[in-house]
Amino acid sequence: MSVTADMSFPRVGDGSFIEPSDRFHQEELQLALRNHAVPLEALRYDVTPPGLHYTLIHYDIPAVDVPAWRLTIGGAVHRQLTLSLEDLRRRPQTTLRVTLECAGDGRALSRPRPISQPWLLGAVGTADWTGTSLSAILRESQVASGAREVLFTGLDEGFEGGQRQWYERSLPLDEAMRDDVILAWAMNGAPVAPQHGFPLRLIAPGWYGMAHVKWLRSIRLLDHEFTGYQQSTAYRYASTREAVGEPVTLMRVRSVMIPPGIPDFLTRTRVVQRGPVQLSGRAWSGRSAIRGVAVSLDGGTSWEDAEVVPQSGPHQWQSWRYDWSAVPGSYQLCCRATDATGNAQPVEQFWTARGMGNNLVQRIPVIVV
Amino acid sequence: MSVTADMSFPRVGDGSFIEPSDRFHQEELQLALRNHAVPLEALRYDVTPPGLHYTLIHYDIPAVDVPAWRLTIGGAVHRQLTLSLEDLRRRPQTTLRVTLECAGDGRALSRPRPISQPWLLGAVGTADWTGTSLSAILRESQVASGAREVLFTGLDEGFEGGQRQWYERSLPLDEAMRDDVILAWAMNGAPVAPQHGFPLRLIAPGWYGMAHVKWLRSIRLLDHEFTGYQQSTAYRYASTREAVGEPVTLMRVRSVMIPPGIPDFLTRTRVVQRGPVQLSGRAWSGRSAIRGVAVSLDGGTSWEDAEVVPQSGPHQWQSWRYDWSAVPGSYQLCCRATDATGNAQPVEQFWTARGMGNNLVQRIPVIVV
Repeated sequence: MSVTADMSFPRVGDGSFIEPSDRFHQEELQLALRNHAVPLEALRYDVTPPGLHYTLIHYDIPAVDVPAWRLTIGGAVHRQLTLSLEDLRRRPQTTLRVTLECAGDGRALSRPRPISQPWLLGAVGTADWTGTSLSAILRESQVASGAREVLFTGLDEGFEGGQRQWYERSLPLDEAMRDDVILAWAMNGAPVAPQHGFPLRLIAPGWYGMAHVKWLRSIRLLDHEFTGYQQSTAYRYASTREAVGEPVTLMRVRSVMIPPGIPDFLTRTRVVQRGPVQLSGRAWSGRSAIRGVAVSLDGGTSWEDAEVVPQSGPHQWQSWRYDWSAVPGSYQLCCRATDATGNAQPVEQFWTARGMGNNLVQRIPVIVV
Repeated sequence: MSVTADMSFPRVGDGSFIEPSDRFHQEELQLALRNHAVPLEALRYDVTPPGLHYTLIHYDIPAVDVPAWRLTIGGAVHRQLTLSLEDLRRRPQTTLRVTLECAGDGRALSRPRPISQPWLLGAVGTADWTGTSLSAILRESQVASGAREVLFTGLDEGFEGGQRQWYERSLPLDEAMRDDVILAWAMNGAPVAPQHGFPLRLIAPGWYGMAHVKWLRSIRLLDHEFTGYQQSTAYRYASTREAVGEPVTLMRVRSVMIPPGIPDFLTRTRVVQRGPVQLSGRAWSGRSAIRGVAVSLDGGTSWEDAEVVPQSGPHQWQSWRYDWSAVPGSYQLCCRATDATGNAQPVEQFWTARGMGNNLVQRIPVIVV
């Protein structure tokens, strides 16, 4: 497909991509209707049920013909490999329970708002991923001594930032060689669903979702730094869209509360019966356990410690709970996690020009009756 | 839970619920992130894969303890029944392939826009539902001679229109007694997912989704007309929110095209390679086959007939296709279905104050290169 030099797409807003108004464009809504969050009440499940795990699909879900599909391993290797799904499934397999979050979670809470997929909260999920070790495959391919990065390319193709591209991202070689990085063909015991990367996706525990490349078609060892759009432009922490900034990597610490009581349909304001209420939720951090979760009933003025359940696995969220004796009135409930390395969620937004990693504390309006 | 007389929730916009601007409120976005549409490329699947079928959840997904769960059948019957899930699963079972669409599909394309779940297009899906005949259960309960309607009540509770309620809807008795109305515990061969009504939902083929009550807990025979919120207020075709209008019942005729080519991430504008392109999609109507689908390349000025694949079952969408020789330029692709009873999709919007049944023709901007 040739692309004319002057190809341009309609722009939303004034084209600045930083929207001062708190009203949303139809283009943002369109993305929100495709890419869904986990409804927060579904944080009650240790493993997110099928169809509730968040999805973020940059282009279209590809149609994959499994008999014709192959994964190629090439680039800076001494032995190129071409593997069918059956070849992969015959290899030793492992299952990991992994919490995945989109790096843009919280973006639509940013003021002013970077325009992209407009996540509020809940761009997260936990699943059991079954697959085979990436490092074993890389060893088999005899990685050349000059290799520095591993580039993962998907079958999903589209335009973004004015560039035609397949979705692709790299990992540093030492990250790709970790024992817990796998190529997964099953999610919760079933073939990976089309929207989650059928037939094969990368799972790199600890990293934000953008690193877990879906619909894999090739893996290439690079002797240089990958500078493609998703690596050097899109997923960056920077103060302007033009600045290079810092790369987005591991998940920043976050906690989310299951909204108590029952909702108003339109506003999602919660109505809670007076008396004992157990508040609960989940908390996670990219490669660290959660040391504590604090709860506020008054919008962050005062905080009390919640009880945090110890980690039951290295890659998954932890539960927390807090007993509240609810008295009639209006409240703004908040939760705030601190991880074992001392990182805590900010009470104010973490503002970046592309709306990445905004892990500010959640606020839930509640009416106790 | 008591509710104070003056309980009120924050209102969006000016509180009129008819929004003149084409910019969306955060409350609408919040609903869109919970309740997702089928990504239109997934219309390629005859049966919508798990997690891609649309969902519309008014309140929260209930947590259901199956051993304690019971379905009660009461009201105007001579024999009350209380059934466990095991009781239901021991009954004769049937599987129906059914296309379900939300009555609000297309709402956010309405100008001015009624404020509620802001569907663009794709609030639809097709699934294989397995369950047992409702009419057999009703016969067993010995329906009283004065019974006129059957009321279905779910376990999902919340506030809507200022009223606290469980979600509930009725069917006329003759509709409930149809052979193709079932109580379903399985979807595509697996237990109904939490977001689709676990452990049991009503399936009433032909009706818009609001009739297929999820998380069923009771069925009551009524000797009078049910006038609850979801029946007499929410799901109505009316020119104002105060008018009584007409009830929303069967799905209005609609066709949807799978967007061809590849998308721009943010705007979803499509880029298509010149040459032969097969356009395709689905079409359906509540209780009628599709007689024809017409395609326009110029935004509805001229139309040509697509090929429509005959119905392979009475309750499911039909496929259609159209061969296009694409020449470089900009296009607005449209499709327009007519059903066997002669109903055709309007080129202009079907405007109602609650944004129900807006089946206007789809428009897809496409750039051919």
